[in-house]
Amino acid sequence: MSSTTAAPKLSPERIFTTLFAYQQTFALKASIEVDLFTAIGEGANEPSLLAKRCKVSERGIRILADYMTVQGFLRKENGKYQLTQESAVFLDRRSPACMGSMGNFLADEENVAHFARLAEAVRKGGTASSEGDNSKPLNERWVGFAKAMGPMAVPMAGVLTQMVKSSGEQPIRVLDIAAGHGMYGITVAKNLPNVHVTAMDWPPVLEVAKEHAKAAGVAERYSTVPGSAFDANLGQGYDYVFITNFLHHFDIPTNEMLLRRFCAALKPGGTALTVEFVPNEDRVSPPMAACFSAVMLATTDAGDAYTFAEYERMHRAAGFKTCTLHHVPDLPEQIVSAEK
Amino acid sequence: MSSTTAAPKLSPERIFTTLFAYQQTFALKASIEVDLFTAIGEGANEPSLLAKRCKVSERGIRILADYMTVQGFLRKENGKYQLTQESAVFLDRRSPACMGSMGNFLADEENVAHFARLAEAVRKGGTASSEGDNSKPLNERWVGFAKAMGPMAVPMAGVLTQMVKSSGEQPIRVLDIAAGHGMYGITVAKNLPNVHVTAMDWPPVLEVAKEHAKAAGVAERYSTVPGSAFDANLGQGYDYVFITNFLHHFDIPTNEMLLRRFCAALKPGGTALTVEFVPNEDRVSPPMAACFSAVMLATTDAGDAYTFAEYERMHRAAGFKTCTLHHVPDLPEQIVSAEK
Repeated sequence: MSSTTAAPKLSPERIFTTLFAYQQTFALKASIEVDLFTAIGEGANEPSLLAKRCKVSERGIRILADYMTVQGFLRKENGKYQLTQESAVFLDRRSPACMGSMGNFLADEENVAHFARLAEAVRKGGTASSEGDNSKPLNERWVGFAKAMGPMAVPMAGVLTQMVKSSGEQPIRVLDIAAGHGMYGITVAKNLPNVHVTAMDWPPVLEVAKEHAKAAGVAERYSTVPGSAFDANLGQGYDYVFITNFLHHFDIPTNEMLLRRFCAALKPGGTALTVEFVPNEDRVSPPMAACFSAVMLATTDAGDAYTFAEYERMHRAAGFKTCTLHHVPDLPEQIVSAEK
Repeated sequence: MSSTTAAPKLSPERIFTTLFAYQQTFALKASIEVDLFTAIGEGANEPSLLAKRCKVSERGIRILADYMTVQGFLRKENGKYQLTQESAVFLDRRSPACMGSMGNFLADEENVAHFARLAEAVRKGGTASSEGDNSKPLNERWVGFAKAMGPMAVPMAGVLTQMVKSSGEQPIRVLDIAAGHGMYGITVAKNLPNVHVTAMDWPPVLEVAKEHAKAAGVAERYSTVPGSAFDANLGQGYDYVFITNFLHHFDIPTNEMLLRRFCAALKPGGTALTVEFVPNEDRVSPPMAACFSAVMLATTDAGDAYTFAEYERMHRAAGFKTCTLHHVPDLPEQIVSAEK
């Protein structure tokens, strides 16, 4: 019990904290939902002021704000709350980089319910839900994704922009597979005026992407192909195909088949740019990419976070000539580029 | 992008990780459920061996074991998994200190469902569920608690043992309020042969405590009072009353009323020992005690993690002469002792 003991005492605290970790998710979601961060950003810095501003109980918001302080998303001094730099940039609704909407997908009822059945998925080797086949339209799910996850894509879309070779005046044609919110292609088009994007997804999802394209002022260089990557008429002669957070939903033979289709849509010398969670060969690093395998186990029939060696084999089998891994610093995902 | 940049780059990674934190909970629960830690402890150290031993799919257990490695509950070297010291002691079912059962209460369906409605609780100032009044019998819930949470109590029960003055031969009578699993009183009785415990709880919960008392060999010094702390006939003349993880379920006026009842059951000079999550006056430290307020907001009508100043006022108002806070190192809870 002495504080001079050298070795840290073995404690079950981390097990307790992990079994309570779901509370961190729901507390952040609740904070976003009642607009706690925006309210503090606007100057409501005490429970009584926050209760009025957020239209909630004073007791409830005091407990929530204290919890978010313990989690490091707020600071509290002399009973008054302040935003941290992180929450001011990413959680205050007035910030252009606000990512609050992400909770509506990452921790939606369906994802949580799938994970709650993880033991069943481990027994079976795939999701315990009946909706794990992502070749079938799951419109509600992917419209939800498209509405929630756009802000998360913007930093990586900046990196993609740098990888698109756009010197000269001639048009560059980009095919954006399962575009979702569309923010990868849209951001590239916004930055590079000679880029024309063809976005492919199910029709209700494309409606969200089209709204985003309009808001970004690139609607005139944005066309759409309704359908699935499995059977839509993708066209051909593209300079680039973007395959963003898509291949992780499927098994390796399916991905090889899909990559053959995407390769066929490229012009000779065209490039496929795949944005993915790519764990190292040990499959336990880096943390976010490695953990993503479990998300695929819980929510899909046969998806996975594939290593670069696996992506390389898939691309080669699909007819690509080269395959290169680009480490992207500071982001959880990486880019695999492959030339036809 | 350079690794020599001094200031850490602002990233939404922690927000992403927090919105996925529920996955840590369910992955640990699933690992306990399929007996992953015991299997590795017994020598099944590769996916193929684990699949056989745990009767699950090889793909599923590979992904789960990798996830638990990232979370630091396992080690992986050259493709082979090993237990950490923490998981060997607290998560291998063969270990006497195994706490695996805790997940069945801390992350049970009901607790998760209550937390998923936290925004509603913040608006209302109390749980969004209809089961937040803990003066009413919630037998299924508290039988689940009693079966799951016993191991968590044992270290603190050792500290309580040290606080019971048991020199001499004469019997020491302990009243254990809302005893649950009973492990506080039972452990003290096991260590101190002149202690007699009277455990109070609802009848189905007492059945669990009686089994534990029998298993610990103290059944002959263990009697029970069925009912609730609000209306059971508690008796009188006790040397000690144990009030463990109980007062946090209620508001301050209710606790004062309850403490008056407990005080009346003590002999003059008797001592109430309250085990509780006691945050500091800032209400944002230490982390686990401070976070416990949110658990009470999500799951009870009016409970809270009270500060020592609040406990002191409650005890004084209830007629206790003294009130002292005992910091317990290395455990998330503390002890408030009060003499009649």
